[in-house]
Amino acid sequence: MEIKLFCPATIANLSCGFDVLGLCLDNAGDEMIVRKVDQKGVRITKIVGADLPLETEKNVSGVAALAMLETLDELDFGFEIEIYKHIKAGSGIGSSAASSAGAVFGINELLGRPYSRKDLVQFAMQGEKLASGNAHADNVAPALLGGFTLVRSYAPLDIIRIDSPEELYATVVHPQIELKTSDARSVLKQNVSLKSAIMQWGNVGGLVAGLYTKDYELIGRSLHDEIVEPLRSVLIPGFDQIKQTAYENGALGSGISGSGPSIFALSRGKETADQIAKAMSDVYEKMNLPYEIHVSKINPDGVRII
Amino acid sequence: MEIKLFCPATIANLSCGFDVLGLCLDNAGDEMIVRKVDQKGVRITKIVGADLPLETEKNVSGVAALAMLETLDELDFGFEIEIYKHIKAGSGIGSSAASSAGAVFGINELLGRPYSRKDLVQFAMQGEKLASGNAHADNVAPALLGGFTLVRSYAPLDIIRIDSPEELYATVVHPQIELKTSDARSVLKQNVSLKSAIMQWGNVGGLVAGLYTKDYELIGRSLHDEIVEPLRSVLIPGFDQIKQTAYENGALGSGISGSGPSIFALSRGKETADQIAKAMSDVYEKMNLPYEIHVSKINPDGVRII
Repeated sequence: MEIKLFCPATIANLSCGFDVLGLCLDNAGDEMIVRKVDQKGVRITKIVGADLPLETEKNVSGVAALAMLETLDELDFGFEIEIYKHIKAGSGIGSSAASSAGAVFGINELLGRPYSRKDLVQFAMQGEKLASGNAHADNVAPALLGGFTLVRSYAPLDIIRIDSPEELYATVVHPQIELKTSDARSVLKQNVSLKSAIMQWGNVGGLVAGLYTKDYELIGRSLHDEIVEPLRSVLIPGFDQIKQTAYENGALGSGISGSGPSIFALSRGKETADQIAKAMSDVYEKMNLPYEIHVSKINPDGVRII
Repeated sequence: MEIKLFCPATIANLSCGFDVLGLCLDNAGDEMIVRKVDQKGVRITKIVGADLPLETEKNVSGVAALAMLETLDELDFGFEIEIYKHIKAGSGIGSSAASSAGAVFGINELLGRPYSRKDLVQFAMQGEKLASGNAHADNVAPALLGGFTLVRSYAPLDIIRIDSPEELYATVVHPQIELKTSDARSVLKQNVSLKSAIMQWGNVGGLVAGLYTKDYELIGRSLHDEIVEPLRSVLIPGFDQIKQTAYENGALGSGISGSGPSIFALSRGKETADQIAKAMSDVYEKMNLPYEIHVSKINPDGVRII
């Protein structure tokens, strides 16, 4: 028995929502096959599209799967995983999270769903820990739950899923430079001014309110990062130009996706999202910088069987 | 022509929502009479219940009224204001905000509503500026709009009103000590750790989500202040005991109201709110500390004609 999955890309650190807010993309993502087999344990049997380790303990999807299986009674069968990567590692749109989320979702399905999607977040986080050293949930939560997710707290883990207004689109451009998460992390300051922090939590409140009331303008006004973007954006070539052109072409807001280098813009309606994509592309073409670009609805479901 | 108003007390700095979140109380507040008279200008003709200046420019309601009238064509008539104070100055439940909000609301009504309630916030803020040196909106916004209010931004001013879940009650105890806002402000640190700030904005997002989804438990989990309460609570006698007894008696959350010394607890249903009031009273009675206590529904309307 096997199932084939779409494992969506995600945008974390949504402007004001650094470390807490993420969203799920709809037409950027990996594919994965999860197969129930007689041999016990978890094996990664195939990886296409990326140079990643096949050893279970060194692969994020393997680690996430093992974290989940450890909590269950020992099974007299096992699982094979095939991964077809489309999300580039280090792009800032949740490449490792897609693999971690897919593995635990797939195995959970084949086991008859002992866990809810929300329960699976804790296991997928173990894949993130392998990938980045930190068991973050801000990519795996939207990958598993869809829509927007708020990580209210890590201890205890408290994830809130928020529906996305229907016409909301994301445009994401990935300049093909290498930006290590560890470098993106090293520019952060351990302390922030109380004044900036207050502005930031005012905007988080505004963004969450805008999502519930489907107030696109409010969502836009709230998409402002006082704290992290000023420090990290200097690591991303053309950031200011990309952001400016996004606004000029109708974006509600724009910022760094994850820890970068991808840059996202949110907008209302596909037409505007496409126009932003065109304008962003023009910027990087003039700079002769290779890039990938995605235009996507917000994915309401998260990882799914295809 | 005159109208009589109920000018509600308010709770600002709602735990994680320092400087941005407030709520409106229903059965704690001042009364005010605003009268249209032939003589031009604004006069405070009577203040009962508090020793406050009658001079228009020295009284928060006068200052707020003048700020509003300055934006209109000159009138060939004026206004008299009578204030019946029930909210004690310095209690931390928006005494000056109630007066400022009442004055601008009353005059606006007598003028045939040239302004919306939201528009009035900017004028009432001028009263707050006189009272505390800062043109804060976190008390005047809920006093004018009712429910919960989020001050997303001051520049430009962006106020978001959020409905309160119907069964939500507030219990507020006011220990009768003097705690100057300036002293409460002086203990704050100008910088906070990024880690605490992230926890705080996670909770702000959670609280706003909880209000929209009427999820009382989520509201409770989110009512946690990482940043200000640890510093300010030491200025309030019995704070830890009051907070503990609130939780023991069913509070969803508890914290400092405004800049103190009042302490609030939110709970579901009047019975629990009353029980918390009893338990809080017991604490201060054992300490022989005079106190006032209020149990109130969240007021959905803000200042109103009575």
